[in-house]
This record gives sequence, C-alpha cells and structure tokens, in this order.
Amino acid sequence: MAVSLFQSAIYEAQFGDAEMSEIFSDRAEAAQMVRFERALAQIEGELGVIPKASGQAIHDGLSDVEVDLSALSKGVTSSGVAVPALVSELRSHLDPEHGQYLHWGATSQDVVDTAMVLSCAQALDVLELRLRAVIDALAAKATEYQDLVVAGRTRGQIATPITVGLRIAKWAQPLIEIEKSIPDIRARILRVQFGGASGGNTATAPHGAAIGVGLAKALGLAPAQPWHVDRSGLVHLASWLLQISVALSKYAGDLILHMRSEIREVSAGAGGGSSTMPQKSNPVGPETIRTLASLAKAAHAGIANAADTAEDRDGGQWPIEWALLPQIVIATGASLSHALVLAETLKANEAEIQAVLAANDGVMAEQVSFMLAQHMPRPEAQALVKDAAKTGKPLREALPELCAQDLDWDDLFDPQKSVAPCREIAEAIFAAR
Amino acid sequence: MAVSLFQSAIYEAQFGDAEMSEIFSDRAEAAQMVRFERALAQIEGELGVIPKASGQAIHDGLSDVEVDLSALSKGVTSSGVAVPALVSELRSHLDPEHGQYLHWGATSQDVVDTAMVLSCAQALDVLELRLRAVIDALAAKATEYQDLVVAGRTRGQIATPITVGLRIAKWAQPLIEIEKSIPDIRARILRVQFGGASGGNTATAPHGAAIGVGLAKALGLAPAQPWHVDRSGLVHLASWLLQISVALSKYAGDLILHMRSEIREVSAGAGGGSSTMPQKSNPVGPETIRTLASLAKAAHAGIANAADTAEDRDGGQWPIEWALLPQIVIATGASLSHALVLAETLKANEAEIQAVLAANDGVMAEQVSFMLAQHMPRPEAQALVKDAAKTGKPLREALPELCAQDLDWDDLFDPQKSVAPCREIAEAIFAAR
Amino acid sequence: MAVSLFQSAIYEAQFGDAEMSEIFSDRAEAAQMVRFERALAQIEGELGVIPKASGQAIHDGLSDVEVDLSALSKGVTSSGVAVPALVSELRSHLDPEHGQYLHWGATSQDVVDTAMVLSCAQALDVLELRLRAVIDALAAKATEYQDLVVAGRTRGQIATPITVGLRIAKWAQPLIEIEKSIPDIRARILRVQFGGASGGNTATAPHGAAIGVGLAKALGLAPAQPWHVDRSGLVHLASWLLQISVALSKYAGDLILHMRSEIREVSAGAGGGSSTMPQKSNPVGPETIRTLASLAKAAHAGIANAADTAEDRDGGQWPIEWALLPQIVIATGASLSHALVLAETLKANEAEIQAVLAANDGVMAEQVSFMLAQHMPRPEAQALVKDAAKTGKPLREALPELCAQDLDWDDLFDPQKSVAPCREIAEAIFAAR
Amino acid sequence: MAVSLFQSAIYEAQFGDAEMSEIFSDRAEAAQMVRFERALAQIEGELGVIPKASGQAIHDGLSDVEVDLSALSKGVTSSGVAVPALVSELRSHLDPEHGQYLHWGATSQDVVDTAMVLSCAQALDVLELRLRAVIDALAAKATEYQDLVVAGRTRGQIATPITVGLRIAKWAQPLIEIEKSIPDIRARILRVQFGGASGGNTATAPHGAAIGVGLAKALGLAPAQPWHVDRSGLVHLASWLLQISVALSKYAGDLILHMRSEIREVSAGAGGGSSTMPQKSNPVGPETIRTLASLAKAAHAGIANAADTAEDRDGGQWPIEWALLPQIVIATGASLSHALVLAETLKANEAEIQAVLAANDGVMAEQVSFMLAQHMPRPEAQALVKDAAKTGKPLREALPELCAQDLDWDDLFDPQKSVAPCREIAEAIFAAR
Repeated sequence: MAVSLFQSAIYEAQFGDAEMSEIFSDRAEAAQMVRFERALAQIEGELGVIPKASGQAIHDGLSDVEVDLSALSKGVTSSGVAVPALVSELRSHLDPEHGQYLHWGATSQDVVDTAMVLSCAQALDVLELRLRAVIDALAAKATEYQDLVVAGRTRGQIATPITVGLRIAKWAQPLIEIEKSIPDIRARILRVQFGGASGGNTATAPHGAAIGVGLAKALGLAPAQPWHVDRSGLVHLASWLLQISVALSKYAGDLILHMRSEIREVSAGAGGGSSTMPQKSNPVGPETIRTLASLAKAAHAGIANAADTAEDRDGGQWPIEWALLPQIVIATGASLSHALVLAETLKANEAEIQAVLAANDGVMAEQVSFMLAQHMPRPEAQALVKDAAKTGKPLREALPELCAQDLDWDDLFDPQKSVAPCREIAEAIFAAR
Repeated sequence: MAVSLFQSAIYEAQFGDAEMSEIFSDRAEAAQMVRFERALAQIEGELGVIPKASGQAIHDGLSDVEVDLSALSKGVTSSGVAVPALVSELRSHLDPEHGQYLHWGATSQDVVDTAMVLSCAQALDVLELRLRAVIDALAAKATEYQDLVVAGRTRGQIATPITVGLRIAKWAQPLIEIEKSIPDIRARILRVQFGGASGGNTATAPHGAAIGVGLAKALGLAPAQPWHVDRSGLVHLASWLLQISVALSKYAGDLILHMRSEIREVSAGAGGGSSTMPQKSNPVGPETIRTLASLAKAAHAGIANAADTAEDRDGGQWPIEWALLPQIVIATGASLSHALVLAETLKANEAEIQAVLAANDGVMAEQVSFMLAQHMPRPEAQALVKDAAKTGKPLREALPELCAQDLDWDDLFDPQKSVAPCREIAEAIFAAR
Repeated sequence: MAVSLFQSAIYEAQFGDAEMSEIFSDRAEAAQMVRFERALAQIEGELGVIPKASGQAIHDGLSDVEVDLSALSKGVTSSGVAVPALVSELRSHLDPEHGQYLHWGATSQDVVDTAMVLSCAQALDVLELRLRAVIDALAAKATEYQDLVVAGRTRGQIATPITVGLRIAKWAQPLIEIEKSIPDIRARILRVQFGGASGGNTATAPHGAAIGVGLAKALGLAPAQPWHVDRSGLVHLASWLLQISVALSKYAGDLILHMRSEIREVSAGAGGGSSTMPQKSNPVGPETIRTLASLAKAAHAGIANAADTAEDRDGGQWPIEWALLPQIVIATGASLSHALVLAETLKANEAEIQAVLAANDGVMAEQVSFMLAQHMPRPEAQALVKDAAKTGKPLREALPELCAQDLDWDDLFDPQKSVAPCREIAEAIFAAR
Repeated sequence: MAVSLFQSAIYEAQFGDAEMSEIFSDRAEAAQMVRFERALAQIEGELGVIPKASGQAIHDGLSDVEVDLSALSKGVTSSGVAVPALVSELRSHLDPEHGQYLHWGATSQDVVDTAMVLSCAQALDVLELRLRAVIDALAAKATEYQDLVVAGRTRGQIATPITVGLRIAKWAQPLIEIEKSIPDIRARILRVQFGGASGGNTATAPHGAAIGVGLAKALGLAPAQPWHVDRSGLVHLASWLLQISVALSKYAGDLILHMRSEIREVSAGAGGGSSTMPQKSNPVGPETIRTLASLAKAAHAGIANAADTAEDRDGGQWPIEWALLPQIVIATGASLSHALVLAETLKANEAEIQAVLAANDGVMAEQVSFMLAQHMPRPEAQALVKDAAKTGKPLREALPELCAQDLDWDDLFDPQKSVAPCREIAEAIFAAR
C-alpha cells in the first residue's frame, strides 16, 4: 500500500510511469500555467487589450520564473484553486505597472483547463508512440506464428483449431481501432480554454474571440468556444484511454491463462519467482496490466461523473478531473509499457501446444463433422461425431470404428485443412491500419 | 420499485421509452436472429457453400415464422445462449433436407452480435432524430433569449452577467459535439459479425470472408473481421450514450436550480403538484433526466467491464452487454424525450431575472472594475470595488460615495456594455453544427 | 438482449429470479403501499388524529382493493411519484367522509420507502434461506473431500498441495461472514418511514412519533426517526448484497477454471453443449453467476450514488433506488440459486487431480524444501530444490541425484505429510457459523 | 492536476490528509512489514518451529532496521510484491545462522495483508475521533438552533416549515448510524493473516494455527483463519468509508445550496474569494468534500471489484487494494476534517431565513390546510388553499378574502404551531448515540 502506487518509492517502478508522472508533476503543472499567462499577456498586448509594453514585459519577465509551490498550496487552501495565488506570486516578479495586466480578463478555469490540455497533448504524444510500438510488436509476432495451429478456446473449453497468429491479431484488433481514433481524440481535446468568469468573455469584450484564437495559436492548440461546462471531450478521452486499458487487460488475461502451469503454451516477460516454490513463474507483467486496468476503470467512472457540472462554472466536479485524469493516463501509459515488453518477448511453446492438441482431439470435432457432411447428410455426420465423443476414446480412434464408410481419416483430422482463413483474418486485421 | 422501471405498468410511462423498448423486445430480438439466419442461408447458397436450393428454401421458408419464445428460454437455460434452441426451433419449420444447412458454419455469437447490431442501428436512427430535435429546440430558445441579461452563476455564487441565450447554447454545446460523432459511431458499431466457433471461420473455409461480405450487404451493415473479443466499439458506443445522458443531466440540474422557489428564473415542462402543498411545482421532468443519467452511468460501468473478455470467445462477460446495452440506450432515449419537452416549453421569467440582478448588484463588480481601470490603475480600481463590496450596501450606491472621480455610473453599471460577446459565442456554438 | 434480462420471455429463466420478481412486481408494490395506507389510517384512528370510525373504515374498506395500475402510471407521469394517484384511486373506493382522512399527514416518500422496506423484508427472508442452503451444501462437500489432496494454485501457477475440502471451505468463508451480518442488516433496514412533507412530522403534531411507532408495530418493522435523507442503510444493504454476489463470483470463477478442458478437476452443474462441438461442456451456471455479479456491481454503484441526496427530501436520487435495488436483489438472489445447484452437484474428479499432481511434482517443492531443512541448513535445502527444478526433470527424480544424503524420498514427497492443517482450517471455517 | 492530489506540493494541503498519508507512507508500510516478521520469528521461536535463539535474534536484530526502499522497489519489479526483496534485505542485517529462519513458513500475502490491517487499525482510530468530533459539533449546533424555524425544502421547492436544528440533526443521522458500526468494522477487519503459500499452513504444520494466534496477540489483532481470498471484510470497510463520504457529501451539498447568493441562510467555513468578483464567497470547503466523495466512490468501485479474486491466492486483484484502500481512507479522512471545520463554524443567518419565509408564505400551506380542516371538511380546506395559491397573492392575504369563516389567521399562519416535533426528532436522533 501507498498513498499513491504511482508515486511511491516501493511501488512506482512497477505500477507507475516516470515519463507520464513528469508530465503531471506539480512543477510541470505550474510551468504550463505560467505558459498560459505569458501567452495571454502577449496576445492581449498585440491586440491592444492591455498596453503592448506590458504584454511584452509580462511575457519576457516570466520566462524563467521559478514558482513557489508552497504559495500555490496556500492559495488552493483558501480559494480551492491555485490560480489567484499563482497570479499574486507571478506579479511579485513583475513591475507593478505591468503586473496589473497579468491574467487580464481570464478566469482561473481558463488557466487550469488550458494547462491540463497542454499536458494532455504531451501525454497523447507518448501514448501514440507506445500504442504504435505495441501494435508493431504484435504484428511481428502474428506474422511469426501465422501458421502455427493451436487449440482455440471459448468459454473455458477447447473449441476448434485456430492459429497463434490469429489470436495475436485479435489482441491487436481493438488497439488498431483505438489507434485510428487518435486524430479524433486530439481534435476533441486539444482546444484552448478562454471564457472569463462566467464563460461569456464579458471582461475582455469585444476582444475575447480574438484573444482565444491568438492564445490557441501561441500554444499550439485549436481555438474553441469556452467549454467550461462541456466536459464531453474529457469523457471521450477517458473512454479512449479506458478502451486501451481494457484491451490490454484482455490480452494480459489471455497471457495469464496460456502461461498457466497446466497450459504453458506461451511465455512472455520475465516470470516472477518465489523463494520457496522454485517451480513457479508468476505472470507479474500481465497481472500488473490487469491491476492497472481496474484502476483505469475506477478513474473513468469518476471522470464521467465529473462531467455532470452545475451552473455556468462548477467548483466541486472540476477537481475530480484534476485527481483522476492523471490516474487514468498513467495507468494506461504504464500498461502500454508492460504490454510492449510482453509482446516483444512473447514466445509460443510449440511442444506444449502440440501436446494440448493431441490430448484433446475433440478440438477437431467441428472440422471433422463439416468434412464428413461432404460424405453424408449433416445431421448424420453430427450424430456420428457426437456418438464418437461419447465413447470417451480419442475421436481419431472412435470415429473410424463407428463409421461405416472408409475415409481418409488423417486428412479429416488435419487442422491445416481448415486454418487457412485464420491467416487471412490476421492479415486483414493488421492491413486495416 | 419494479423489477425494471423500463418495463413496469406503473413506472414505464415516465422512466421508460416505448419506442426503444419495442426495438429491444424479446419478439424483436428473435426476429433479428431469424433475419440473420435467413440472410446467411441465402448468401451461402449463392456462394455454393450449401446447396443453392437449400439456401433459398431456408430464406423463403422462414419469412413469416413465429418463434416460440418459451423454446428459446429453455435453450438459454441449458446452454446459456438462445441460438442452439432457435436453430432447432427453426428447423422444425423446414424440410430436413434443407434444414440441415441452417446456421451453417456460424457460431451463436455471430447471430446474437449481429442481431444486437441491427437493433443498435434502429436505436441510433431514433437517437439521431431526437438529438437533432433537442438541439433545434435549444437553438430556437437561444435565439429568442439572445439578448436577455441574466446573472451568471459559478460555484454557487452569482458571478457576472451573461445572457440566457448563452446559457442555453452551453447546454447544447456538448450535444452538438456528440451529434457530430454519429457517423463515427455508426462506422464503429454497425458491423456484421461472422467468425464461427473460434472466430477463425474455419468451418466455412475458404468462404468465410465472402460470406461475411454478403451477409453485411444483405443486412445493411459494414463487413468486418470477426470482432467476438474486440468489444471496444461497444465501449465507444456506451461512452457516446453516456455523454448524451450526462450532458442532459447537467442541463436538467441547471433547470432544477433555476426553477427553485427562491430563483424561478425559468420554467419548463409541467410542474408536478403536491396534494397538500399547492405552492409547489416539482421539477418532475428534470428530476427524471437526472435519475436516468445515473442509470446510464451504472450501465456504462458494466459495459466497459464486459469488454474485458477471456479467450477466443467469452461466456460470462458477453451477457452483461445483453443486460446493460438496452438499459443505457433506453435511459438515454427517454432522457432525450424529456429534454425535448423541457426545451420546447422553456420560458425565461424576465421579472424574476431582473429582480435577482437588482438584489445582487455585486454581479456587476467585475465589469465595473474593468471599466474603472480605464480611469485609474487596475489595482486601484479593484481595491475600490472591494472596499465598496465591504460596505454591505449595493455597489451602485457605495461606489460613487467612495470614488473621488465623477463618472457616468449608470453606464458603468449597464450590463449591456459587456454581454455582446455572449451572443457571439452562442451563435458560434450553434454555427458549428 | 432484452429490455430487462430479469423480465424477458427468453432470458428470465436463466438470469432472473421468479420468486424475487414476484416480490418486486408492480402488483406487489401497489399492495405494499395499500398496506401502509390501511395501517396508517387505523393507527391514526386509534390515536384520535383522525376520527376512529374513518380510520377503521379506511382500513377495512381497502382490504380487498384492486388498484388500477394505469392510474398510478398517469400519476407518476404527472408528479414523478405514484402516491398522489394512488390516494385518489383509493379514495374512489371509500365514502368521501372517510376518504378525506386517507394518507393523513403522510408524504409520498413515507409510503414508498415503507413499501420498499416491506419488500426488502420478504427478500431478506428468501436470501437468508438460500444463503444457508449454499453454505450447508458447501459444508457437506468440504467434509466429503476433506482429505483429498489437490494442487493449490496461486497467481496462475501450481503452488503447494492443499485439500479440495479446504478450497471449498474458502469458497464458503465470505458467505459465513455475510450470514452472520443478517441480524445487523435487518436492524439497519427494516425501519418504518414516517416523517411527513419535510420530515418533521409537522402535519400530525404532536402525534407523529406515536403514529410512527404504531405503524411500525402494525407492519412488523422497527420504529425510527424519519430517514428520508439518510440512505446509509440502503448502501449498507447494497454492500451486503454485493459481498454475496462477489463471493459467489469468485467461487464461479474458480469452478470455470477447474472445469477447463485442460484441468477438469471438478464438475458441477449440467454442462452446456454445443451443436457442432460435442466435446465441449460450457460452464453455463458459473458464467451466469459471474454475469450476475457484474450486474450487481453496476447496480451497487448507482445505489451508493443515490445516497447523496439533496435538501430535506430529494426527487432525482430517490428513483435510482427504485430502479436498482430490485436489480441487485434479483441478481444476488438468482446467483444464490445457481450457486446452490453447483454446490450440490459438485464432484471432484480424483483421477484428473492425481494426474495434475503427478505431472507437476514441483508442487511438492516447498514441502520437500522444508523437510530437507531438518537435514541441512535451510539455504542449502532451498538451493538444492532450486537446482533440481532447473534440471527440467521431475523433482522426485532430480533431487535424489543431486543430494548427497540418503533420505526417505517417498516420505519427503508424500503430500499427506503437510496437508493436515488444511482439514483443520476447513473445519474451523465452518465451525464459526 | 497532479500525479496524486493527496501527495502534491500544490494540492495536498486542501485535498489530502497529512495524518493519514503518514500512516500509508512507504516508510510506514515497510515498518509494518518488519513488525510482522519480527513478531513471527519470536512466536515461532517460542513454539519451537524455529530455534528459539534464532527467533529472538531476528526479533531483536531487526528492532531498529532501516529498510532500503529502493531494494523493495526492485523486488516489486521482479516479483510483483515487495516481500521477497524485503526478506533478502532483512537477512543482510542478520547472522545467516538466524537469518535463514526469517519469514519461516509465511507467504508474501501474509506479510502484506497483516501490514495493511495494522495500518487500517491506526486509520480507524483517527477516523473514529474525527467522526465523533463532527457529530459532537453538529449536536451542539442542532441544540443552538433547535427552535429556529426555517423553510423546509424538498425537490427544489420550498415545502413546509421545519427547524434548523432538525436539518442539522438529519445531517448527523447517517453519521450516528455509521459510528455505531465501528466495533463491527474493527471485528471484521483487524484480523491477522497467516496461511502460507496456498493458504493451508502446510509449511508450518502442525503449528500454523498456534503461530496465527501468537502473531495476532503480539500485533494486537484478532486471530483468524487465512483470508487470502475472502476480501469481503475489505468491501465491508470500503462501504463503511463510502457511507461516511456520501453522508458528508449530502451535508456539503446542502451547505452549498443554503450558502448560495440567492439564499444565504447559513454560512460555514471561510468563503473563497475571487480577485475580480469581491462579492463572491465560494464554498471551498463543501466543494472539496463533494470532490472527495466522488474520489471515494471511484475507489470503492475498484475495491469491490478486487474482491473477486481467482484461485487460492490472487495476483492481479490484490494490488488494486494497495492502490485504492489508501485512497478511500484518505478521501474520507480529509472529508471529515473539512466537515468538522464547517460544523464548528456553521452559523444560521436569521434575517435571511426570515426573509425567505416571508417571501414564500406558501410554505405555510400545508399547516394552514390541516388547521383549516378542523373547521371544515378536509377536501374543502385543501380546495380553499389551492384556490388561494392560484391568486398569485401571498396566502396570508388571499385566504381570508376567499374564506367565508372568520378565523384567527395569525394563529393559523404561525409556524411555531407545527414545528415542535422537529425538536423532538432532532433530540431523538442524537439520543440514539
């Protein structure tokens, strides 16, 4: 246990994400807010909303400022938000003549939301790279194992043969859909926030729209109408992150299954040992991915709840996002990192795979039944296979005994006769990128 | 209380949605599954996977079939899924020679998932119309009240003046974003499911892909690689529905606030009376929207959880979707219907609005402070307004007493001086459709 | 899919609970509300709050009333709650002289909450019986298999030997804790609601408290201060139900695992067949329990949310309970029914169990290591076992080859040497009832 | 935003809880684990499971040990859990002769779970004190305002008169129920964990039970059968914490409402100012409580999910608790601290309360209607009041005009005639402690 697994000397290395944590650090948060204030002053100066000299003085004077975080902390305590304290703090670095024009016409939420969006932009860049790397790694493994027949498993039971390549492609399938959505996510999220106290830009009338456009340009964001109470974009982002986390959790769950002592068809990652049970190889990486997905789900529910704001700007729902958006981003980011290691080290154990197929030749029942239907009516074929299954003997042994016809049984039981579409499907899944 | 508020003689009229309930009825579910089986047989006949005559006989023979739902119920009890029982039931309506080719190469999930998607297609058509109608109605009201000044409210406090039109536009703002996503939602969801037992189309090799394309065409869906274990599209859909529900909940919450006894700035819908308290006008419609949003949130969490499937096809997560997808669709659909009534009957009470502004002239503090800053340094202007606020008197009275300068105070306190951008923002929000 | 899986001609038999659905039916809801009104009139008549004759006339006159549910539906539509319409409807069955005293001093929530509590009382009786039956059945099986050694499994890996009896006892362990809480749950929930419009019993002053006590007595409930806005008891109940559902889900998950094709150490329930894959035995019952647990989790989250009420009585959070409390009760109730069937039919497959132990003699590593430590320093013993594990040979073969000492290896590898505590723990778990 | 609001230089002072964070710190976690290992060695030495001298040497030798957290971090990375690394690290401080007996027969989860329970014991002590203080403060205020009449509010509408004291008592009502549960919570949670690798205490046979009892005694916990996979107690604890958070959220929500600019009937805490809107007094404390309740809800959902463990010990669900249990404890703890400040500074503004009553004399409609029913049939009385309400005039003015009888109208409109039960109910609520 720790106050936060993502910020713990003991747990962070496994559950956290140093790169993401840097993006959401207190220091980075303060820097993004300063970036907003500097850009705001400059564009307001250019537009003549404030004296041009003051705009420039603010922009230049705060370029190297080191914000006193303890002052911000006190500000949060007294007003629930860091911005008024930040503004005071920044003014202390400026000539009062210019400092009076700092934060001109903005509301705290303009600053905090835009800072959040700037952090999200960085996080999205990281996530995009990792997502691509995971899909690439899975694609390579799917190709490597494109013809390796394995027992398909459905509902806890061995079903029909597929290929290892198809299974891997199916793990990638949701990730590929999710990857395609990245431009949409960026378009929906990377928007400047500038609306003033009640979101009507009354304090800077009639320049609000122009300031917003200028700010957006300076910060590399899209211009937007004030979205203080439209948090649908954040729900959209959170859902996208959740989709990644859940897709990886499915993949991790399958790995845990296929790495079980009784199956061992694949190995991936470095197994965690046990001091007293040397035979064990605990699936540490996949377990962590599943843990992180649960954390992402919990965070998602809170973020969706936060979107139900009150009034023209809200005070109680908004900080839920401050708390949980970093959580879901970090959980998802860390999950992708673990997933990449597992994808790159994924190894199919052909001997075990073959042993399972041999010990469970019921896996061929469907194929045999369909192929038998070329020699007799389908109901008869199905009945024959069912009867063979009831004998308790391997199908390959029982069927010829029960069947009056003389057929090429080795051919009927050859899984390669039916798995060709698996390769096609796997290729088509990756071709959709 | 009821087993389901959506299917109750007492509660359905208020909380349910008759049109949506029809789409998700047992009868409709059975019909969609029959539709799948008929189309499957026809395309398989055309492709020569099964005898052409059998394909046609199945397609034609089941055109008017009335499925015995009690047989399906028994099937669900024995195998957890209705399809095997449905197939038996349908075969009883067919000549055995043809009946043997029914459901050829398909797995239960192919049928159930495709039926689900077909129902979703219908539901999306309904939702699209309702969403459009709600936005249209809000747009009309935003125009009607585009210049009506009202006290902006943030964090439980009267803040700065805005217009009623802007507030209405902000209610519509997330809905407009959500409306834009409809094509994306359709593209992500309206996909045929055809993969066979383990999702590799082995039973119909090498025709699986062609069957899938033909099926999709016959059913008006997009072709797709088997997505048995990729439920990201459903999470995406659920998030989209949740975004609607939450956006409407925010709108409903604001209505409840502004319809309070102490505010009464707006009225909307027919107020619910109380037998012993005739003065009350309970906000029945908005309350119901908020209730429905909570139900949508609960359903969403379950659907996201369901996406974490196991193996090549899952048995325990999948029925969560059967339970909760209709719930979130119905909750959202009913919510839109209530929202439309509220939007169409929305009426601003100008006298009350004016009274609130008059009784809280602190609402003008920011504007006055910014306008004073044209006559004195900003810190001085702010200090002056702060001092005036401390007197406890109305600002309009206190400020001239404290200010040494002789200014046009009526002009400084005229909200029309600052609300012009509100109209622009409102127009821009709707122009983005 | 269905509007509600719990009320569907296709799905209810597997996912629903006929006995619970009857308790929460529209008809039963109306009857409980009538029961409240009759008892209220009688006690108010006895206390002289209303004329004694009117109290009796109401009580007697409504004894066989058949409420028109469509009238209640219209009432819900107009006021959000069924009670005003119910009161009108009931009055139509009474002489106006007496009818005027119906519902005297009560508020809608008094009626609806008390009716809900009365339904919960019935549901708790059913749940208690089922919970007891499940624990009893598990206890019998734990005794039957108290000495049967099986491979313990932790983190997806075969760990150390335990007994089947211990595993079964562990499934029962949370249920036994939960069973002990039943009196506490009843004490927290089965409380009358009587508080009037704003919860202060002003309309019936000074008789409110006496009416509440009399009502409680008449209805078999505990008296209570008005709890309109204290929903903590319902959260407590929901958590208790969730604990049952989750405990059963863990049990079901383990069954699915141990019934897998590759393990088959146990069987339970009737396996669901597949038309084309006769070798399959889908774990339908356990899957359904897991599905129901997910539905219970989703419902629980909504109920907890509903407890965050507003003002002196709330209108938007309250109906969330009407929707979701029946859902969590039905999900939990149905889950217990499935769990009972599975417990009663649970069968350990000794041959498979033995085969797994034989094929994975690493399971003995810890015991051997501890027993070796009686013959050498522990680090040396551990190193020896580790080295043996690395050989890839069975431990039983590798260890004697590596060990310089001549030991009774059969004894060291006899799991019966270490599993005695398993039986003791299992017995202690059940002894705690 | 921050990686964690509870561990941020900017946000922790407002959202976090220094006292709780100390309990869950990395350093404290390590210390609790060492405490377990020392107590284990000592009791095992006393029981002769390990050499007595070694038990004592371990116990004494580790009394001042300073654990290297970076070593634990590496351990978590390789095995998913800190204990193997901790054991290595601790052995480096011991003579190998004794060190070999460290952690004898325990499994990682024994250590981590017991350490968690020890931390929970500390947290429960803190929570109990704070809960008591909040209830005490509310009790004092309820007494202070026991006779102050205020407009009751239900469903967003002014309803009937109650007292401020009753409203305050209703805020305390769930907290009092929750307080009563503390012994039950302690009994359910404060249990030692000792079960060994697969929870059967096979490695220490036949001493496992005795070791467990001794450990429990040494650590101040109750003895217990191994509960590795019975997490129902944690769900129970989480629900208890959630109930606190939600009860405080309701209280905070009401404060925000009653502190609104348009109502201002109460003040509590120090209002957060706005630099440009000096008239504002943002309800910072109540907002934070509501934010924290949302975080508690999100954490609760995850913890309940974690209880659905797999196998004889689980690897993926368990760390969810490490992450989320501290979160819900800290959120609840911080919430209680804010609630106490708000309770102690709560002040009713009698002038505003009176003004609202005067401006909304419909609040008296129910009382007047009931009192009129002493002079005419109830339906007639209700109709009269309804007609008066329709005039749009104040009831006090309209009613005498419409009523044919000459009545003591001042008496009929005197709220003190009906609010006596409010005081009684409030007293009864607190008397239940």
